[in-house]
Amino acid sequence: MIIVIAPDSFKESISAKDAAIAIEKGIHQVIPQAQCILVPMADGGEGTMQALIDSSNGTLIPCRVHDPLMNPIDACWGKMGDDKTAVIEMAISSGLALVPKEKRNPLITNTYGFGELIKAALDEGCTQFILGIGGSATNDGGVGMLQALGYQFFDKDGRELPLGGAALSNLTRIDASHRHPLLHKATFRVACDVNNPLCGPNGASAVYGPQKGATPEMVQILDRALAHFADIALQHTGISIVNRPGAGAAGGLGGGLLAFLNATLMKGVDLVIQCSTLENAIAKADLVFTGEGSIDAQTQSGKTPFGVAQLALKYHVPCIGLCGNLGDGSELLYHHGFHALFSITDRPMSPEESMSEASALLQKTTTNIIRTFLIPNR
Amino acid sequence: MIIVIAPDSFKESISAKDAAIAIEKGIHQVIPQAQCILVPMADGGEGTMQALIDSSNGTLIPCRVHDPLMNPIDACWGKMGDDKTAVIEMAISSGLALVPKEKRNPLITNTYGFGELIKAALDEGCTQFILGIGGSATNDGGVGMLQALGYQFFDKDGRELPLGGAALSNLTRIDASHRHPLLHKATFRVACDVNNPLCGPNGASAVYGPQKGATPEMVQILDRALAHFADIALQHTGISIVNRPGAGAAGGLGGGLLAFLNATLMKGVDLVIQCSTLENAIAKADLVFTGEGSIDAQTQSGKTPFGVAQLALKYHVPCIGLCGNLGDGSELLYHHGFHALFSITDRPMSPEESMSEASALLQKTTTNIIRTFLIPNR
Repeated sequence: MIIVIAPDSFKESISAKDAAIAIEKGIHQVIPQAQCILVPMADGGEGTMQALIDSSNGTLIPCRVHDPLMNPIDACWGKMGDDKTAVIEMAISSGLALVPKEKRNPLITNTYGFGELIKAALDEGCTQFILGIGGSATNDGGVGMLQALGYQFFDKDGRELPLGGAALSNLTRIDASHRHPLLHKATFRVACDVNNPLCGPNGASAVYGPQKGATPEMVQILDRALAHFADIALQHTGISIVNRPGAGAAGGLGGGLLAFLNATLMKGVDLVIQCSTLENAIAKADLVFTGEGSIDAQTQSGKTPFGVAQLALKYHVPCIGLCGNLGDGSELLYHHGFHALFSITDRPMSPEESMSEASALLQKTTTNIIRTFLIPNR
Repeated sequence: MIIVIAPDSFKESISAKDAAIAIEKGIHQVIPQAQCILVPMADGGEGTMQALIDSSNGTLIPCRVHDPLMNPIDACWGKMGDDKTAVIEMAISSGLALVPKEKRNPLITNTYGFGELIKAALDEGCTQFILGIGGSATNDGGVGMLQALGYQFFDKDGRELPLGGAALSNLTRIDASHRHPLLHKATFRVACDVNNPLCGPNGASAVYGPQKGATPEMVQILDRALAHFADIALQHTGISIVNRPGAGAAGGLGGGLLAFLNATLMKGVDLVIQCSTLENAIAKADLVFTGEGSIDAQTQSGKTPFGVAQLALKYHVPCIGLCGNLGDGSELLYHHGFHALFSITDRPMSPEESMSEASALLQKTTTNIIRTFLIPNR
């Protein structure tokens, strides 16, 4: 019997890898000879880098870069097992969580550190990039990133622009001649689950600016600056990002990636699946386990377990979902590849208890599920 | 497909019947054509009367009797669907919960009310009795019960003894000539999970007296009184109860039942199974559900789910246990007829939430178990 174990992390509790190991233990307690294939998963958000590293036997590489306010920060990027694919999470260098509330100012915060991480991976010879861009502190259209990669952005007086989104309103010319020499060989796939355009009422500044510290006045400044940036970028690259879905992701970083790095934006979970061995594994499996901290009606909107279940459905392999919270609307998932769903809580308990005992609870619940699965039903 | 649903009540939450109905709903959501046989269960303790009434289509009959301190109290007894079997729980008339702590005095508390309930059932023509005797407030050897049934207990001066355990030390003669005329036709089966002897360090007074309000001095008085009662009872009935296991149950009520009513003491769950249709149902079933508020290592010591699982094992029918708390040592039960065990909690929650939502949670968990059970496994 071949069983694929492909959970996401259980947020604030255990990593996808540890969750997979716990589920495997629960299976082996009942079927010692079962062949378990562990594929730690993620949905393009937090934990994606770790999951792809774990599932490909890759390594984490530490790297000192700059945070959104240009303070030095210890970050890292992931080199996958193939030695040519880099996985980088923008939030590690340029995330909102790195900036204390009182210092949040999207006029000046920037993605320079994220560019430094990409540069480090290029320097190591990586040419395939998997980028996670959720949770940014910035609204700079990805210009900070491009500056770290050697692009130069000038104002009308020929001076290089300072970092940050506000300065983009003075942009007149872009010079790519000093960009990183390996960039032209590199391909970029970006996990992006939002479809916001770059500008306007649904754009980066209006929708996400306020949570990054923008006042209504700042939102107007930033929105105009990004629109102006899109104009100049179009002149420079021939690529119009103004109406591209996802260009407004991560303060316009989506747009910068589209225009300058020819990136492909994909649903996070689809990208992770594409980069993992999941499909091959499921194709030959008898049963699939997936899971995440919460499973409910929201799971349908691009969460990891949903992507896994869809793939299981494609290959007609039964799929069981495990979670801490089995919330409202979970029964809708029965129509989308989930055969059954279980909370791992084994008694009334606090969220803290369920998180600190997650590994043992996963194992225990899995054991009982496998024992139920093995009951002869014909 | 035939599925037997035989849970105990989920204490402080829902009755065995309501638990069975919730499980049935969960099954029918997945297999609408499944034939469910509902057998609400109990272990001889609280809820036994209700479960046997529910499973036999019987009726509860209200009856005004006397509490352990001879205050009037509204009680009831159960007439099972066969119209000749009475189910009576001693705790309803003579239980410790009926006496406020400051009034607990086992020198005078008595089982008279319990006898009144038996008398009421005899008056209605019942000749088979199922008695639950757990949780008594009394230490009277069942003499109060016998007095209510017409037995007379005299001291050396020919005066009838007052009620309560202390008075038994003055007992010299017993007169059964005025006992209820139908008593000789009646048979008594008693749910009794304790093996305590009547007297001595493991006897009724020493072990259970203190929780009924006995001081160390009272324990001595009561222990001697019960020993004397056993002597006189032997003279009167020819039956020695002094070394009979279970004679010390319920303040010596076990002994009184053994000596005077020729009662059979049985493990509670075995008695309930014997009185129910469970065995017939399981013999033809494809799957069995049982459950209780808690399932853990203690479940092995005569709890309802254990009895149900043992019977399922006898007929090689897989059995699944449902509970609120799936506690330590539950995995030991896999060796005793349980195929799998699940807590019904679907998220971290308080005990109060789990109890107030028990019905919906049982249904939801059962649905997912049945869905897992139906996954083709070969």
